Amino acid sequence: MEERLKKQMDFALEIDKEKNIFRQTHLSGHGRRENDAEHAWHMSIMAYILREYANEQVDIAKVMLMCLIHDIVEIDAGDTYAYDTEGAKTKKAREDAAKERIFSLLPADQKEELIALFDEFEAYETPEAKYAHAMDNLQPLMLNNSNDGNDWKEHGVSAKTIYTRQSKTALGSKKLYELTDKMIKENVEKGNIPEK
Amino acid sequence: MEERLKKQMDFALEIDKEKNIFRQTHLSGHGRRENDAEHAWHMSIMAYILREYANEQVDIAKVMLMCLIHDIVEIDAGDTYAYDTEGAKTKKAREDAAKERIFSLLPADQKEELIALFDEFEAYETPEAKYAHAMDNLQPLMLNNSNDGNDWKEHGVSAKTIYTRQSKTALGSKKLYELTDKMIKENVEKGNIPEK
Repeated sequence: MEERLKKQMDFALEIDKEKNIFRQTHLSGHGRRENDAEHAWHMSIMAYILREYANEQVDIAKVMLMCLIHDIVEIDAGDTYAYDTEGAKTKKAREDAAKERIFSLLPADQKEELIALFDEFEAYETPEAKYAHAMDNLQPLMLNNSNDGNDWKEHGVSAKTIYTRQSKTALGSKKLYELTDKMIKENVEKGNIPEK
Repeated sequence: MEERLKKQMDFALEIDKEKNIFRQTHLSGHGRRENDAEHAWHMSIMAYILREYANEQVDIAKVMLMCLIHDIVEIDAGDTYAYDTEGAKTKKAREDAAKERIFSLLPADQKEELIALFDEFEAYETPEAKYAHAMDNLQPLMLNNSNDGNDWKEHGVSAKTIYTRQSKTALGSKKLYELTDKMIKENVEKGNIPEK
């Protein structure tokens, strides 16, 4: 097998490990914890289905690919929970090392392309990155909302803390932020989460 | 929340169930069984990374979306193992009923669009469908090969039977079929699977 195809297949096999990286979010129906590969799959389909609500015109193929690969670095770096302030301090260094190792399995041109896409997502600046982040926020919120806010309860998270993260959804989609806001308010009203 | 967005979110939550549909393939590193959502995620990234080997020019965004949604019907219909000849007899009827129920959760225009894409995949005729099927074949083959062919051993599958399915990979990618062929031959040589 020639070198290029071998490298591509080495990368394809390596990313299988993302299925073993478990998140804090639980599946609907009070299921088990979700893993990164499942989360990425779910986000990508949601990005497509909900694309009419993006604030700006987006290249949806680019958004979908961004969603699919955005957590690959967690194979080495692990999942840092959205409200883990200690973990957040070392997140970038851990993810940078992982990014270099994992994408280096690919041929140089594809390594460069996927790192650029990963960095674009992280930078939160382009319409595609902002909309992809809206999905990264909305997908676990939807699951957690379907489970009576149990993930928030477990971690003692307040509505105020949730808003810090979720308010950025409005950068990608004002419409979906309205939905987010509605879900958070309902969880406060039901007593699932404290206001502050 | 207006009716259209409500329907889209109902669909988004419903497909979460695909993460509970487990396949016969095991994860690399002699891991647990893989589920449909993980398989779809993996196929979509592989489709992108390996697109230069498609026999014909493909709309890669369409291929990726096709990969992402191609197993949604299994939420109701269950997974039918590639070499389950009894299950194969009722597969179409089970999947048709599932397709109608699940995609009907979406607004009519999106239901129509995704059913058309699902049907295109199943029909195995367009360049996109043939290439997406090549991924549907290659991804579990890659995992199984990495696990010394244990899934084949477990089901007593012979190289001849594997070829029946895998030979269709050539319709989507002659190059990736060469790789498939090499992996099957190596598993025969190692004594992992019988020739006939």
